[in-house]
Amino acid sequence: MIMVYDVNVQRVSKVLHIGRRYLTWVQNSVMEGSLTNAQFKRLKSEIRQVIEEDEDSVLFYTIRSPKDVRREEIGIAKGTPSNFV
Amino acid sequence: MIMVYDVNVQRVSKVLHIGRRYLTWVQNSVMEGSLTNAQFKRLKSEIRQVIEEDEDSVLFYTIRSPKDVRREEIGIAKGTPSNFV
Repeated sequence: MIMVYDVNVQRVSKVLHIGRRYLTWVQNSVMEGSLTNAQFKRLKSEIRQVIEEDEDSVLFYTIRSPKDVRREEIGIAKGTPSNFV
Repeated sequence: MIMVYDVNVQRVSKVLHIGRRYLTWVQNSVMEGSLTNAQFKRLKSEIRQVIEEDEDSVLFYTIRSPKDVRREEIGIAKGTPSNFV
């Protein structure tokens, strides 16, 4: 699972705070990790409660398994990679 | 392929300009699309020429096939989704 968010600066810390309880921060507005369906449902519902859906955008890429994705980085590692990839 | 970038504001437009020749912009600092290996090699080499590797971070998630990933969006669609997902 990769979560990327493009939200109003007033709501970024709320989204980050929620995201951190489920995923690993890897870069500005990017989080990744492994979630169960139940956890993913809760994450989405908590995110919905803090964003403005007519102004903010949160994208989730659900990848079937870690073996289906390869991660490459150019430059410095800003966050700590999760074991998801 | 998903590309996310966290680069110095002076270099964002250069990275975006290069990225747009290969991928679709979907959200702030997030691009997606399908690339051949040759295209992906060229993209990385062009990105390396414009970023400062000790300050900027560009992450690439290569996903084996569109059927291995599902994309969900909460809030407004900021960019146009590619046919990659």
